[in-house]
Amino acid sequence: MRIALDAAGGDFGAIPNVAGAVRALQTTPDLTIVLVGDQPQLESLLSGQAGVPSQRLEIVHAPEAVGMKDKPSEALRRKPDASIFRCWQLLAEHRVDGLVSAGNTGAVVAGGLKTRRFLPCVHRPGIAAVMPNARGQSVVIDVGANVFPKPRHLLEYAVMGSVFARELLKIPRPAVGLMNVGEEEGKGHELVQKSYELLRQGPLREQFVGNVEGRDIPRGAADVIVTDGFTGNVVLKLSEGIFEFLMQVVRDRLIEPLQGEKERAAQALHDLIRSYHYSTFGGAPLLGIDGVCLICHGSSTDVAIANALRSAAQLVRLRLNASLVEALEQLPANGEE
Amino acid sequence: MRIALDAAGGDFGAIPNVAGAVRALQTTPDLTIVLVGDQPQLESLLSGQAGVPSQRLEIVHAPEAVGMKDKPSEALRRKPDASIFRCWQLLAEHRVDGLVSAGNTGAVVAGGLKTRRFLPCVHRPGIAAVMPNARGQSVVIDVGANVFPKPRHLLEYAVMGSVFARELLKIPRPAVGLMNVGEEEGKGHELVQKSYELLRQGPLREQFVGNVEGRDIPRGAADVIVTDGFTGNVVLKLSEGIFEFLMQVVRDRLIEPLQGEKERAAQALHDLIRSYHYSTFGGAPLLGIDGVCLICHGSSTDVAIANALRSAAQLVRLRLNASLVEALEQLPANGEE
Repeated sequence: MRIALDAAGGDFGAIPNVAGAVRALQTTPDLTIVLVGDQPQLESLLSGQAGVPSQRLEIVHAPEAVGMKDKPSEALRRKPDASIFRCWQLLAEHRVDGLVSAGNTGAVVAGGLKTRRFLPCVHRPGIAAVMPNARGQSVVIDVGANVFPKPRHLLEYAVMGSVFARELLKIPRPAVGLMNVGEEEGKGHELVQKSYELLRQGPLREQFVGNVEGRDIPRGAADVIVTDGFTGNVVLKLSEGIFEFLMQVVRDRLIEPLQGEKERAAQALHDLIRSYHYSTFGGAPLLGIDGVCLICHGSSTDVAIANALRSAAQLVRLRLNASLVEALEQLPANGEE
Repeated sequence: MRIALDAAGGDFGAIPNVAGAVRALQTTPDLTIVLVGDQPQLESLLSGQAGVPSQRLEIVHAPEAVGMKDKPSEALRRKPDASIFRCWQLLAEHRVDGLVSAGNTGAVVAGGLKTRRFLPCVHRPGIAAVMPNARGQSVVIDVGANVFPKPRHLLEYAVMGSVFARELLKIPRPAVGLMNVGEEEGKGHELVQKSYELLRQGPLREQFVGNVEGRDIPRGAADVIVTDGFTGNVVLKLSEGIFEFLMQVVRDRLIEPLQGEKERAAQALHDLIRSYHYSTFGGAPLLGIDGVCLICHGSSTDVAIANALRSAAQLVRLRLNASLVEALEQLPANGEE
């Protein structure tokens, strides 16, 4: 399969993208990568890499890039041929099966919304993030594509998140929870109250475990947590921040004062951090797109980019979208957007 | 001063409340506590306690209680004399200076909204929670009183949170951040976009550091984080859940495999958990009320209840409300609720 990589995306520009692409190609024989970015720069970076499987590596020239702080709507208007938008054009023209970007998340989503290549039955795509918990992993959807959704959008996110958890995390019948401020029915604002009704009656009714609170996410009370993109984005970034903060506190207050077993404890902490680090899955898919779109952390290293490219390839290989459509077709028709 | 304690509130009923009240009285000579609950039960529990300063302990009989899962609006209608609502009545009748409850948060807030004893210039009270971060502590407001606020409410929360941080956390000019999905101006939904404009132009303009993301809370990028009660509630409970989860992981994977220094590391972990535990401050104040209202965690122990009673006494002693009113009066008048 063919995956386009937004080679200009991310905090460190082309360097980790090129290195990550080469890593992914070396371990994934059925993968072809289309590097989208500044051709002279990409060629120069590639010439410094050893063992490049060049017959499975193409370059599409896109000299412009969307900055991490650029406003997505302005970027779309002023730089319609920036690398991330060229990736979307390649997807729309069926020249690639998927795209991966560590760039400005808002611009990645805006490019997708503009292309409007949504799966049948999808009103708005949503970003699904895999998060660790005390019992394994769960999926939080949406984490930032749609900050003010309608109840119907959350219903579709629940269906897509559930299929994603089943196919990718191998959870047979994922428990679906609705993010709220209390467990009892009737809690929260209008969006969650109406979404609760839709989830309770829809095809997921047997999997719906009702409202879940913030503390239920790390406890693993649900396999899929459905929420608006505002709350989900805060959840994702807060989790990352608390993890960093607490690991530093453990380093300073628990490991530093040790003597004989200090090195042993430091190694255990290192392993622990590795196993929970966001780079393991490498990216969060924008679900609901006809094609695969994986959004990576801005500070992704070459290892994270390589993992994301492999994950994107896996989503294509698994035919995740066919499973999503099959499940979405079970939803009652709804005139409301 | 006189503080009413909702003796029926919390997951464990009257037991930790009575023990907590006695603890607080023993260390706070200028405090009188009014225990509000089932009189025979309270008398029986008190008879089992040693060293009760009975001349500073009163009982107000309120046989009914709001359960942790009761719907607040129904509780108000069906049990208007339940212990928490009796506490509010005592406050409204100026018979106490403040109230403390570990009961159903929704019912505590509903009781306060019904009483409508708000400070001048306040349209809606908000709950302020103190959270640890890498640089000390910050205040998150609102964490659950107002799940669908208006921009004006967030402006008032910013002012009240800033005064609270200054008076209680002793931060001279607190930096105020607006919870959002990205740092750039224009991010997020209508509520945060409009609130941004109000904060930028209002009396806090010199203290306003703009939008903050989830990861900025544990990093300590702002001293006061202003947000709607839905997001704030998720932030508070998620933080608590991640803390529990990660401390368990550290116990299992880092401390358990140690040998000679295992006990030393376990003690350091114990101290660390203690220093970050929510029970240290003991409760989150509902700011904007004419009087003091401190809301405690449902699972509060006697130690947490005693800390909350001491914190409530401190808020009365500091005349926090006078400082809040002084700051709120600087806000431009606004017809919009």
